Amino acid sequence: MQIKIPATSANLGPGFDCLGLAIALYNSVCIKPSSYYSISIKGEGEQNAKLKKNNIFVSIFYEIYQELTGQKDPFRFEFDNKIPFSRGLGSSSAVIVGAIASAYEMAGVKASRECILNKALVYETHPDNIAPAVYGGFTTSIVEMGKVKTLKKELSSDIKVVMVIPDRSMSTAQSRTQLPKSYIMTNVVYNLSRASLLSAAFFSENWDFLRVASKDCMHEHKRMRQLKELFDVREIALNNGALMSTLSGSGSSFFNLVRANEAAKVTNALKNTFEMFRVEEFEFDNSGFQILKS
Amino acid sequence: MQIKIPATSANLGPGFDCLGLAIALYNSVCIKPSSYYSISIKGEGEQNAKLKKNNIFVSIFYEIYQELTGQKDPFRFEFDNKIPFSRGLGSSSAVIVGAIASAYEMAGVKASRECILNKALVYETHPDNIAPAVYGGFTTSIVEMGKVKTLKKELSSDIKVVMVIPDRSMSTAQSRTQLPKSYIMTNVVYNLSRASLLSAAFFSENWDFLRVASKDCMHEHKRMRQLKELFDVREIALNNGALMSTLSGSGSSFFNLVRANEAAKVTNALKNTFEMFRVEEFEFDNSGFQILKS
Repeated sequence: MQIKIPATSANLGPGFDCLGLAIALYNSVCIKPSSYYSISIKGEGEQNAKLKKNNIFVSIFYEIYQELTGQKDPFRFEFDNKIPFSRGLGSSSAVIVGAIASAYEMAGVKASRECILNKALVYETHPDNIAPAVYGGFTTSIVEMGKVKTLKKELSSDIKVVMVIPDRSMSTAQSRTQLPKSYIMTNVVYNLSRASLLSAAFFSENWDFLRVASKDCMHEHKRMRQLKELFDVREIALNNGALMSTLSGSGSSFFNLVRANEAAKVTNALKNTFEMFRVEEFEFDNSGFQILKS
Repeated sequence: MQIKIPATSANLGPGFDCLGLAIALYNSVCIKPSSYYSISIKGEGEQNAKLKKNNIFVSIFYEIYQELTGQKDPFRFEFDNKIPFSRGLGSSSAVIVGAIASAYEMAGVKASRECILNKALVYETHPDNIAPAVYGGFTTSIVEMGKVKTLKKELSSDIKVVMVIPDRSMSTAQSRTQLPKSYIMTNVVYNLSRASLLSAAFFSENWDFLRVASKDCMHEHKRMRQLKELFDVREIALNNGALMSTLSGSGSSFFNLVRANEAAKVTNALKNTFEMFRVEEFEFDNSGFQILKS
């Protein structure tokens, strides 16, 4: 069987730990019954020997597979990784969701997407990347009594992503420890009201509201100071017609949402200024993980 | 001319200072050119002599009217107030919005609803009641650079309100001072994620999500302790099929959203237990303030 799992961009400005969306940039994994265990990696991580020895996808896959079948059958795993590591593009969530969904598939056990998502929450405690990796589209999620509840809205082909992917990573854990422990009421209302309006804007496709609704006062500024060029990325993107421009997850990538017919203008402006960063256009993904052949 | 302005319910659980909706319960005011200034009050407040001497509607009306015309013409104001005072039903916002909109109308100056809303923000610093009083429906709002930005979703006739209106008020100002000055990250994410999901649920009409999405950890518990019966109001409403049950604004009323065909069951259960409180069914309002005749 083959599974492909989309990249995701979380937070989207004010939607800390709850808002996310899926991007048509995929990791794919081919899993075949085999007489002995083996692994190959193409693309991101192919030169990292550690990833072959201590592979998180494989560990989670076997944890679930054994839970379902009571067995540890040997498989061959062929990875084709397109999602950059540690760049705020949901590569960990893609690994977790992909491992769980393929373990169910290989075990021959039917599971709803909701079930896969709740399993994934065991490995990643906040749902903002795993939810769009499972469902695709724009997602708004909560965790209630240890379960994820998500509402999804499909993303129109009128809009696209221009992603800026820096040459350096920013650690999520390190980045999280730098955030304040508490927030004053004014700042809470600032983010809370914008996250609500941002959800409403995505659900009603009111693209002109994205710019004001995507402002944040809780985490972006502190995180972006680790890589000061990101302030210029935002300015150039917005000045060239981007509808919104936010840190992707905890960085280091920057997510720029654009009207499809204005993508080239934003892409060119960013490429011209940031020659050291990858600047790439993507469509959105509305499917979530897909199992291509059984 | 005659203007009617709907009651509103704000916060809706997690949506502190930003979410609100309009209810088909109206204050109406009839304003006529007259040779001398006079005022009459029917309904709520009719026995309160102070309201005739020092009437906020009249003060705001003349402030705006003079600003627009440079004159202070005498009018007769006939109030028919159905929105209870100080019960979390947006009576102040109805007064502010009604006064501003009717001053523009009487001055013969055309103004968009957006203009009326921004004028109203001068008198009430948060937009959660004034936005639905202006637009009707469910509204999610932010304040950006001193201006309100609101997205509205019309409310379906499949749903209704069962409002519980206690015999006592809870002061908004007093109630607000009892809230914490700051919130830890976990609690911020709790409300922020639920306010976003609640907006998504209203915009996508996913009524089954309202119950989990309408939970709050920032203000309701503290406020409800002023009137402990409200905890039982919620329990009885939810046990009898209410889709959500939240403090209306800062109280004292409790807002219960129900499927229209289950309204009677919820109403009866609440009436039977709380004989001292008003329990009333209302439709939603999708128009906002309406000028009935010029």
